[in-house]
Amino acid sequence: MGLIVQKYGGSSVADAEGMKRVANRIVAAKRDGNQVVVVVSAMGDTTDELIDLAEQITPIPQGRELDMLLTAGERISMALLAMAINNLGHEASSFTGSQAGVITTSAHGRARIIDVTPGRIKEALDSGAIAIVAGFQGISQDTKDVTTLGRGGSDTTAVALAAALDADVCEIYTDVDGVFSADPRVVPSAQKLKTVTYDEMLELAASGAKVLHLRCVEYARRFNLPIHVRSSFSNNEGTWVVKDHPEGGAMEQAIISGIAHDKSEAKITIVGVPDRTGVAARIFQAIADADINIDMIVQNVSAAATGLTDISFTLPKAEGAEATSILKKLQGEVGFASIQYDDQIGKLSLVGAGMRSHPGVTATFFGALSDAGINIEMISTSEIRISIICRAADLERGAKAAHTAFELDADQNEAVVYGGTGR
Amino acid sequence: MGLIVQKYGGSSVADAEGMKRVANRIVAAKRDGNQVVVVVSAMGDTTDELIDLAEQITPIPQGRELDMLLTAGERISMALLAMAINNLGHEASSFTGSQAGVITTSAHGRARIIDVTPGRIKEALDSGAIAIVAGFQGISQDTKDVTTLGRGGSDTTAVALAAALDADVCEIYTDVDGVFSADPRVVPSAQKLKTVTYDEMLELAASGAKVLHLRCVEYARRFNLPIHVRSSFSNNEGTWVVKDHPEGGAMEQAIISGIAHDKSEAKITIVGVPDRTGVAARIFQAIADADINIDMIVQNVSAAATGLTDISFTLPKAEGAEATSILKKLQGEVGFASIQYDDQIGKLSLVGAGMRSHPGVTATFFGALSDAGINIEMISTSEIRISIICRAADLERGAKAAHTAFELDADQNEAVVYGGTGR
Repeated sequence: MGLIVQKYGGSSVADAEGMKRVANRIVAAKRDGNQVVVVVSAMGDTTDELIDLAEQITPIPQGRELDMLLTAGERISMALLAMAINNLGHEASSFTGSQAGVITTSAHGRARIIDVTPGRIKEALDSGAIAIVAGFQGISQDTKDVTTLGRGGSDTTAVALAAALDADVCEIYTDVDGVFSADPRVVPSAQKLKTVTYDEMLELAASGAKVLHLRCVEYARRFNLPIHVRSSFSNNEGTWVVKDHPEGGAMEQAIISGIAHDKSEAKITIVGVPDRTGVAARIFQAIADADINIDMIVQNVSAAATGLTDISFTLPKAEGAEATSILKKLQGEVGFASIQYDDQIGKLSLVGAGMRSHPGVTATFFGALSDAGINIEMISTSEIRISIICRAADLERGAKAAHTAFELDADQNEAVVYGGTGR
Repeated sequence: MGLIVQKYGGSSVADAEGMKRVANRIVAAKRDGNQVVVVVSAMGDTTDELIDLAEQITPIPQGRELDMLLTAGERISMALLAMAINNLGHEASSFTGSQAGVITTSAHGRARIIDVTPGRIKEALDSGAIAIVAGFQGISQDTKDVTTLGRGGSDTTAVALAAALDADVCEIYTDVDGVFSADPRVVPSAQKLKTVTYDEMLELAASGAKVLHLRCVEYARRFNLPIHVRSSFSNNEGTWVVKDHPEGGAMEQAIISGIAHDKSEAKITIVGVPDRTGVAARIFQAIADADINIDMIVQNVSAAATGLTDISFTLPKAEGAEATSILKKLQGEVGFASIQYDDQIGKLSLVGAGMRSHPGVTATFFGALSDAGINIEMISTSEIRISIICRAADLERGAKAAHTAFELDADQNEAVVYGGTGR
């Protein structure tokens, strides 16, 4: 008998029909002899509707009250899901983040989990019941106020609970079959991955793959907790996110696991920056003080004649306006010439543990892009990732070219038996 | 400086516009130098919508989960109301029933308040903030589960909090101007009452007047807490519910304070009941065991020839089917002839502390009904109330006739300045 934590997103429980389908799946896991804990998000568009309501009241809702408001969403879905399971003749009880012992910092809207003390969940499991837990929410250690975890919060709740309960697996249910070698909407020949390592998944998530959120993968990695990403609409095996590719698998392991693309970033170039010690630090400190995440940074060698250089960096488009305004305030102090803002860029990333031992990866990648007539504007690398910036209009063409160059394309004959082929 | 507890119902906060109007009213009370605690219900039809959702999932939702579901309603309204107040430049924090210290029994859907420990509310008030509290909900003392108080729950929350905080007044905001001498939709000449005693209000509430719920008045009476019932759509003085009519007012006090009518009951007659000791007790014990509230009971003198009698009683229509089925099961054991069910009855009640010292009230009342050609089917009295059962079709005509007979009708000239005339 195992202990399984399952997580269902809002699209899986968007209406009564969805609730019932998910309830059947949960009961099946219970009938298989498992103890089952379920983490559930708010139904469909509930969260967006609640945010709309808040915006009708005030342009700047306070974090504490916005968290109180939004947590109503999971409260509704978890109670209905518990009812649906009860209706199938199995005992189920729902628990808020607070009741489930999800203790967080008090940073409303982006709280971090400090501790999980799932005493009530254990009691429910010991009594033979299925425990339904509200995703995305917790209680502040200091103020005892209700908090939310921000983007990807429900995935993080599921993994954190699974770790605290020493679960055998955390199953993340979504509307796709698993993690793919590229976004199937962009690269139709993309294949579902059988396994992907935490490190690879982190790089994929950071590079724009949306199937799992960074925080949840970080959490799973820290506790070495296997995640099984799978579809709530089929019974197909999904993708396992684990520490290492399975024994033997390493030999066959492709160099590249997946290709991620991301159009959500913009590029800012600061032109004519005096090449003095401390200038770059001053600029990026100001950006960091505003809690703006920057991604890639490139600084050219300064021209000897002028002693001036250009600094480019990428950041989420949503934070572009604020960053630009901060930089303008620095212009007098730092003495640069001008700021250029460019939101027509795309980021293409290759991820794979295999590239560590394959020095030709960069050459193959850049060659494929060059053959496709795509210009590379910025480059950034980690041990298992290479990312480049190109024109947004070239991004999808680049993804397809790289997918083919690294022989990731599904064989046309095998592609029809997707779930079974794997890699 | 006083401490005011205000309660707003769902119709007062049905949308963003309503929230803002209510927020202005709350801030006005705060600006007048008061500490302000606000109890709020779920927005508009939210509770009904949530019940609909539950019914799409299961015909018999468990109490614990239904309470979890329904409490999402106040969570939404209280957070939005706090935001609306903050938006006016005043500090406000929202609190769930649990956070506000509303400790209840664990009877889901109809929990009773055991204790109120409003430590966090006091802290919020001491820090200068306005406290917004979810009505209708609490936390079970035994199981620590979320509970709801059932019908009229938010009014009860408001009065209980006001008592625990030793508030100066509990203001109950509604969509009418106060408590009237009769339902103005039925008796157009009905007048708003300036004051009404707890005892009178209890009798009115029990007799079908819907403006305040029985439980909330019982609570206020126990703690001698003044309630001010008033409209959230005007600044008119409403009706004060207090221990005694004010000094001097007693002289002018009319015999009758108000007339209530009620079409929600049905009548069951058990025909041919053997007139033996214990038979009636057996019948009503069975009804009580099913938690069915009966109202009026009439037993005729038994006919000497047969030793048989008829027993009639009234009860809420909603419980008619269950009561009938319980009685049918008893038929063999008790040996009565048949059961008659009649849901076309109406109950008309006169309420007033003045009738204690006016022996002619019954005669005047019955005379008025007789003149109007209305037949009386059952009678029940208390020290300050007379209720009769008649045909449902005659009810409104009876209310008007009695209102006129007891000289409660507003003078046509004064009626236009309602708020000021009083009684």
